Amino acid sequence: MTGFNTPLKIAGGIALASMLLALPAFAQDAEVADEVAEAVVGGEAAIQTQFILNSFLMLFGGILVFWMAAGFAMLEAGFVRTKNVSMQLLKNVTMYSVACLAYYVIGYMIMYPGDAWMVDGVIGAIGIAVLEPVGLAADAADLTYATVSSDFFFQIMFCATAASIVSGTVAERIKLWPFLAFVAVLTALVYPIQASWKWGGGFLDQMGFLDFAGSTVVHSVGGWAALAGAIILGARKGKYNADGSVNPIPGSNMPLAVLGMFILWMGWYGFNGASQLAMGTVGDIADVGRVMANTNAGAIGGALAAALLTAIIYKKVDLTFVINGALAGLVSVTAEPLTPGLGTASLIGAIGGVIVVLSVPLLDKFKIDDVVGAIPVHLFAGIWGTIAVVFTNPDANIGTQLLAIVVVGLFVFIISLVVWAILKFTVGIRPSAEDEDAGLDVAEVGVEAYPQFK
Amino acid sequence: MTGFNTPLKIAGGIALASMLLALPAFAQDAEVADEVAEAVVGGEAAIQTQFILNSFLMLFGGILVFWMAAGFAMLEAGFVRTKNVSMQLLKNVTMYSVACLAYYVIGYMIMYPGDAWMVDGVIGAIGIAVLEPVGLAADAADLTYATVSSDFFFQIMFCATAASIVSGTVAERIKLWPFLAFVAVLTALVYPIQASWKWGGGFLDQMGFLDFAGSTVVHSVGGWAALAGAIILGARKGKYNADGSVNPIPGSNMPLAVLGMFILWMGWYGFNGASQLAMGTVGDIADVGRVMANTNAGAIGGALAAALLTAIIYKKVDLTFVINGALAGLVSVTAEPLTPGLGTASLIGAIGGVIVVLSVPLLDKFKIDDVVGAIPVHLFAGIWGTIAVVFTNPDANIGTQLLAIVVVGLFVFIISLVVWAILKFTVGIRPSAEDEDAGLDVAEVGVEAYPQFK
Amino acid sequence: MTGFNTPLKIAGGIALASMLLALPAFAQDAEVADEVAEAVVGGEAAIQTQFILNSFLMLFGGILVFWMAAGFAMLEAGFVRTKNVSMQLLKNVTMYSVACLAYYVIGYMIMYPGDAWMVDGVIGAIGIAVLEPVGLAADAADLTYATVSSDFFFQIMFCATAASIVSGTVAERIKLWPFLAFVAVLTALVYPIQASWKWGGGFLDQMGFLDFAGSTVVHSVGGWAALAGAIILGARKGKYNADGSVNPIPGSNMPLAVLGMFILWMGWYGFNGASQLAMGTVGDIADVGRVMANTNAGAIGGALAAALLTAIIYKKVDLTFVINGALAGLVSVTAEPLTPGLGTASLIGAIGGVIVVLSVPLLDKFKIDDVVGAIPVHLFAGIWGTIAVVFTNPDANIGTQLLAIVVVGLFVFIISLVVWAILKFTVGIRPSAEDEDAGLDVAEVGVEAYPQFK
Repeated sequence: MTGFNTPLKIAGGIALASMLLALPAFAQDAEVADEVAEAVVGGEAAIQTQFILNSFLMLFGGILVFWMAAGFAMLEAGFVRTKNVSMQLLKNVTMYSVACLAYYVIGYMIMYPGDAWMVDGVIGAIGIAVLEPVGLAADAADLTYATVSSDFFFQIMFCATAASIVSGTVAERIKLWPFLAFVAVLTALVYPIQASWKWGGGFLDQMGFLDFAGSTVVHSVGGWAALAGAIILGARKGKYNADGSVNPIPGSNMPLAVLGMFILWMGWYGFNGASQLAMGTVGDIADVGRVMANTNAGAIGGALAAALLTAIIYKKVDLTFVINGALAGLVSVTAEPLTPGLGTASLIGAIGGVIVVLSVPLLDKFKIDDVVGAIPVHLFAGIWGTIAVVFTNPDANIGTQLLAIVVVGLFVFIISLVVWAILKFTVGIRPSAEDEDAGLDVAEVGVEAYPQFK
Repeated sequence: MTGFNTPLKIAGGIALASMLLALPAFAQDAEVADEVAEAVVGGEAAIQTQFILNSFLMLFGGILVFWMAAGFAMLEAGFVRTKNVSMQLLKNVTMYSVACLAYYVIGYMIMYPGDAWMVDGVIGAIGIAVLEPVGLAADAADLTYATVSSDFFFQIMFCATAASIVSGTVAERIKLWPFLAFVAVLTALVYPIQASWKWGGGFLDQMGFLDFAGSTVVHSVGGWAALAGAIILGARKGKYNADGSVNPIPGSNMPLAVLGMFILWMGWYGFNGASQLAMGTVGDIADVGRVMANTNAGAIGGALAAALLTAIIYKKVDLTFVINGALAGLVSVTAEPLTPGLGTASLIGAIGGVIVVLSVPLLDKFKIDDVVGAIPVHLFAGIWGTIAVVFTNPDANIGTQLLAIVVVGLFVFIISLVVWAILKFTVGIRPSAEDEDAGLDVAEVGVEAYPQFK
Repeated sequence: MTGFNTPLKIAGGIALASMLLALPAFAQDAEVADEVAEAVVGGEAAIQTQFILNSFLMLFGGILVFWMAAGFAMLEAGFVRTKNVSMQLLKNVTMYSVACLAYYVIGYMIMYPGDAWMVDGVIGAIGIAVLEPVGLAADAADLTYATVSSDFFFQIMFCATAASIVSGTVAERIKLWPFLAFVAVLTALVYPIQASWKWGGGFLDQMGFLDFAGSTVVHSVGGWAALAGAIILGARKGKYNADGSVNPIPGSNMPLAVLGMFILWMGWYGFNGASQLAMGTVGDIADVGRVMANTNAGAIGGALAAALLTAIIYKKVDLTFVINGALAGLVSVTAEPLTPGLGTASLIGAIGGVIVVLSVPLLDKFKIDDVVGAIPVHLFAGIWGTIAVVFTNPDANIGTQLLAIVVVGLFVFIISLVVWAILKFTVGIRPSAEDEDAGLDVAEVGVEAYPQFK
């Protein structure tokens, strides 16, 4: 009665059961055969229970990651000016919808080709996502992982998250439809292709690259795409003066931004926790718990580091940095939320918070106008988190981690630059100067966010 | 080791166990009897595990549907003018509370009479809801479904949802207490009686009417009650001019409205997903995943359809229609979120979004003033969704679906008209013209929503 | 096939399995031994499944209680004036972070010393929290409760909740860092020490004190600390006139306050529901459902009682009292959400709502300025709820309940007074009168909450 691990138990149960049923003669009489068959039900039920628990974890996690879409919407609505709030909200809702559609029609099969790679380990398969049939029979299912529907539901939300990261950076100065066109390319092809390299079993996975829940695979991807967009698009009117000085443009609604942060933080328990992909064994549920506790530790590390550092540098604690510090802490522990202890996780998150505080002025020096700070939070902290895996996970190799960061970065950044540039020089991506002054809510949406507050 | 389905497994396990325990003589010796008894523990545990998982699904779903109450409150607070925001919030909190009380004291037993119908298949039983005792023993429980407490918790939230739909339509011009009186009748009697026809095993269920999570049973019911209220109550002052033209009255806070939409969307995963009522088998958990993925597909279909259609019709993408388009997509797939594929679900949702865009001006033509658009979203899309079941579920019959739509509609609409009219001609339902001008926050609540923003 | 209860089943399964494996000779032949071993897998899996389900319940509950941090932030941001909103948000985020850090480094081991009390039953152990190793083996785990990580994750959120209660009361007139210093003492020592008396198995637990989810252990603790703070800190400038009259200072954003209430309400299903600490048996899941249904009943009781009572007293229904009435209802049922019936739970909550309406003016009489009403909601209703246990739980003893209320109250209140006083007379806790007039957002945070709304 040793606590043999799950795959062994499953294999053993199936083998034993097959043997028992195939060779009923071994039994001394019919009753004993019945007993045995009944006994096996125990093992079978356990396998099914594990499968159900794994699937439920991913559905649960998927709902929480969906909720992050609301978090991004609130965060960004709080960080833009009142005249662009409706537009920012609209972009978040439609972008999420486009991302889901693109991932369903193309992205999912690209990302998880199974054995049907178009270019082995590099480019997945073409096809739309198909869930299992209604009323799946237990004996028709492969019970080693989880349901297709739960996997799809979980993964589609990750794809939408990568897209959400972009919209904050390019806020207040981009037209709706070109933005949605970029999102379609990002979520149908760019995100799924590079994600297949790791999570689809592609070449980065085979090389031993480690990225538990996606510091690189999700967050840096959104960050690179956002950086390319910010460069091609240029800064908002009035953000940078000719002499190189910066005009701060404060966000219009701090409670919304903090609400967005809390929503994202909550969603991250699903983002990281359900990326364990299993909770059907004692080991798995203990790991899910570790992941969630470390996720929280990373966030508080980032928030406190940002609070202390802004107090030192600016003499006042800057709320917007604390918000982004917490988010950077979350991004930082996302590549490896399992192996660190609580203290190390806090420290990894804290360094993420420091990175944000120090890099926001740096971006301004290069006149890269990132409205919500998504590039420091998701790209810089994402790179840091991917590197930090080597400090706690003995299976990680610094060379492989760096290679993956560079390969994914080049792939996403170059394609994003090209797509943004094509959009710019064909349909155009930027509203007229008058529209930008008037605000996009009036110019493009026709619905003001706060019509009575002025 | 066949994968026999759950009811069979349960029945078989119990039968075998009974036999084994009743006829110990069959065993060759005492030890074997012990083994068998122990073996059965496996089957027994599996049944208990299924029962626990089913119950947890409904508690989980119930929490998500509870959360929809917050969604309605935020949506409506965002869509009304600042002078009526506190009133709208107050109505949502107190209405939810009245609905829960009424459902507990009367509604639950009316809706689920078991074998104790007052009028067989038409009117349920009188009695208050009673949960199982503390510390329920496994052998004292019927393990075929789920706990009474989880069922009650899930169902009470559905009842509250039906009521929430009404408050948005009649906003800005109704008095608090008469509104709460209407809600009490709706949730104690109207909703539960018609719900018993389908979900309590009543005559519509016996006729083969299909409504998975309540496009008709929940959403159209709220919609019909809202329509009756809007007719009896009349439009807001200044909404319609004598020449038939319409004065748009924009909502005061778009971030709140979008937050409300996201909350409702999130809650819908519980609303539809947990309406599978089981996740204790492989087939059930796969179905729950299908339902959640399709629920999302319906929402994005509705949002994108509304975005495209308003861009075509009005040259600008109207955020308020995108919000209501997503919600209409959700309502549309609610009658059958299981059998469609992802593409079909998106399409069903998209048609829901189109219905909203086209029907809002229609209501204005009839001078029916629906402040938040609840009638198009919940009633019209609810009817569409109920019809759409026939396209993907071979068990559905178009005649039965239409009959149920009409029967439920007539029942709810007529009673609602009568109750609203009685309230109007006795206590009065409408504040004075001065109070309406001043705003209900000052007149009825005494708490302004945004006292410093003016 | 009796439904023997879980501990027995676990013990029996292990004992039988040990015997069977230790004494294979009993078996008639090798095959039968194999059958038996396999059969036992059923029992084993059941124990593991229970352990997994218990652990997941606490992770699920922990996420919901985390979400309450967002609820407090929104509630308080809605109840303060616009000039102090950023500060209130900042305090909530940093306070949560400090609480988590303090609980991790000191609090958790103080609260759950196991057998390693420093002063037996009174003061726990010194040490930092350590989770189980990655990839816990099933046979290395004690499967009688839940994973350490899930327990830690759940409990850390409770500690943060106790701290959150304080920040609302002392809002608009306290400096950031001294406030955080107080929170560090509260969450590292004060909360964990008194919590160990009950939940760590200390002297109050041994005496039979009952507090299911913490009306006293969590809510009154926050309330006492807040009361001490309000006394030492004094009222806001302009709140009380020299003649004893009160200037009402209305909150700036009612939708935020209501959102906060709904978030807290939602989180409370985890707070109370997961405090069952188990859902691996039929009895436990039924109890979890009872707890959640009763939690909702308490909230609606509180909301409706506050609505009715303010309508009677003030002729208008006061939304702020309805919000606090619902919260007081939740606090009131927290000490015993399991044993009451739904009607009794509603009544217990209703009395909580009445307490709030009646005690807010009382605090003003003593010039205790509680900005959000946290003292009535969490302290007074917490005391009431702790007493109310005796009405439905036959194991409760009124003397023990009162003793615990007094002992915990004296301990927390006196230490809090001392810590607040030390902070006041060393670093100072109150901003200058000019800073208070200008608002703390400008003075301490440097980020205005709504820079464009004025």
